[in-house]
Amino acid sequence: MNIAAAKAFIESHTDFVLAAHRSPDGDTLGSCLALYHALRTLHKTATVACVDPVPPYLRFLPGSDTVVQTLRAVPEAAIYVDCADHARVDALQDTLEQAPFQFCIDHHGTNPRSTKDGDWVENVAATAELIERLIRALGVPVTKEIAECLFTGIATDTGNFAYSNTTPDTFRIAAELAETGIELPELNRRLFRTMPLRKGRLIAHTLQTMELYEHDTVVIACITQKDLFACSAEEADCEGLIDYLRDLEPVEIACTLRESPDGKIRGSLRSKRGADVSAVAAAFRGGGHQRAAGCTLDGPMEQAKQKILPALLDAMRAFAGTR
Amino acid sequence: MNIAAAKAFIESHTDFVLAAHRSPDGDTLGSCLALYHALRTLHKTATVACVDPVPPYLRFLPGSDTVVQTLRAVPEAAIYVDCADHARVDALQDTLEQAPFQFCIDHHGTNPRSTKDGDWVENVAATAELIERLIRALGVPVTKEIAECLFTGIATDTGNFAYSNTTPDTFRIAAELAETGIELPELNRRLFRTMPLRKGRLIAHTLQTMELYEHDTVVIACITQKDLFACSAEEADCEGLIDYLRDLEPVEIACTLRESPDGKIRGSLRSKRGADVSAVAAAFRGGGHQRAAGCTLDGPMEQAKQKILPALLDAMRAFAGTR
Repeated sequence: MNIAAAKAFIESHTDFVLAAHRSPDGDTLGSCLALYHALRTLHKTATVACVDPVPPYLRFLPGSDTVVQTLRAVPEAAIYVDCADHARVDALQDTLEQAPFQFCIDHHGTNPRSTKDGDWVENVAATAELIERLIRALGVPVTKEIAECLFTGIATDTGNFAYSNTTPDTFRIAAELAETGIELPELNRRLFRTMPLRKGRLIAHTLQTMELYEHDTVVIACITQKDLFACSAEEADCEGLIDYLRDLEPVEIACTLRESPDGKIRGSLRSKRGADVSAVAAAFRGGGHQRAAGCTLDGPMEQAKQKILPALLDAMRAFAGTR
Repeated sequence: MNIAAAKAFIESHTDFVLAAHRSPDGDTLGSCLALYHALRTLHKTATVACVDPVPPYLRFLPGSDTVVQTLRAVPEAAIYVDCADHARVDALQDTLEQAPFQFCIDHHGTNPRSTKDGDWVENVAATAELIERLIRALGVPVTKEIAECLFTGIATDTGNFAYSNTTPDTFRIAAELAETGIELPELNRRLFRTMPLRKGRLIAHTLQTMELYEHDTVVIACITQKDLFACSAEEADCEGLIDYLRDLEPVEIACTLRESPDGKIRGSLRSKRGADVSAVAAAFRGGGHQRAAGCTLDGPMEQAKQKILPALLDAMRAFAGTR
């Protein structure tokens, strides 16, 4: 714990840039913006910077309209927020590394920095948990707008209190944030229940064209460039598609094959209760874990499918044999 | 608050039936089973009874295999758990009303009983919140199995901490339950992420056949008996279907029309940000609230659709005019 160092860093400077990582998510932006509001309460100057624009679903966050993508001047103090390494701020790094004072607040277990560097890296569910403690340590009241930012960070990084990183403290902090009167139904809708029409169409297409094997325990779905076009969808809309397949009962192993613009086929693999899909991925020079893995195959689609399918069936039979 | 009466009731009896309501959900069964485990710890006799079988998705609850659907004898003490009125126990009521001692623990604001009847009715998010307090008041340690039952009650009745009934205390109780080491990812998967294949097919069919109007702000989907048959789906699988439509962006008003076996058409209506669908439902002698309403129309399907569609478009135009 280096909350004392973080508090001292903030108290001894007046002009801050709070840097979010590229491809920003709810935790990096929620944490930056909560701290931004707290710094302003302390009559300090603060700018939140992120090389990528704020994604539409996070534009409700109070202060998100002030986030800048480039920096015109070197700030007195730079704080890297939720960045597992400094390079995660991308093109902003050149300017930020010139700041005379720098600090890092992060929750990633893989972050090479540690308290001995004077930074604050602590392995909790979300950086927003650390920011919440910091704001209280600074004596700044947690307003409803600060709470909205922090709750967003915690809810998105824990899958709404569902991932294994969720601890009793995560719930305790949520309780404190809920005291401010944040509107949970509205927050939840914005963060978890909003789906672009094109993604709905893509899910429908995937569920209608999926193929099931081994008594419906193995499912495979192919998404071609033509399919994406037909749904007006983009590659990014494929994210999470595999989860819909894995969640079906009695599916044990799910696989999506996605055609890239370069003609390569990207395979995503999931298992539900312990079948080993990392072995399947490894057979195609991919990698991952027992329950989540990926690999790349040569096209065309039909050929890729015929190649990976026997491996999926083998993995399922091996798993069924263990039960 | 009448936790003292509940504690005294339990301490002064030895043989209990804990009654869940018909069409049991996570809160009534989770609350009954948590209390069942606590009573056994106190060396009392307890039986959980429910007129309907435990739904498959709740059969992981510890003790759920002991739940009975009928009662052979009148117990010394009956506790109605999570029953907004006593008739909610259905056919069990005749036997339970003969019990010499009766008590009711419930969280429904509409429950006609109150503390003056000696019962414990308190308007919190879930009956499981009350049972958690009761178990602690009884001095029974909250084990992991008790915590699994209570967390299930709280998570299901709050939509995983998303409904407006969620309070800071709800999160504080969740924190205490999480201390026991319950596996949140597994609980979450069982409660919220499991979808029968037939329901996946029904969702796909609905998303593929839905019709959009008014710049994609109004969506209507028709589900006939033939559609259900083609998906091997049942009427119960239609539950929640409307939410998938409402969550699409930029949809403001969603409507599903479902053909019943009797040929009548059941309409479900939702709005996202405030369009008034209760007025639409009222025009067809239905009812509901501004953002959730329902009505019944005469068949056939196509005729029902042509009747309700203009009313949906009018509601959308009225809403658009206010913004």
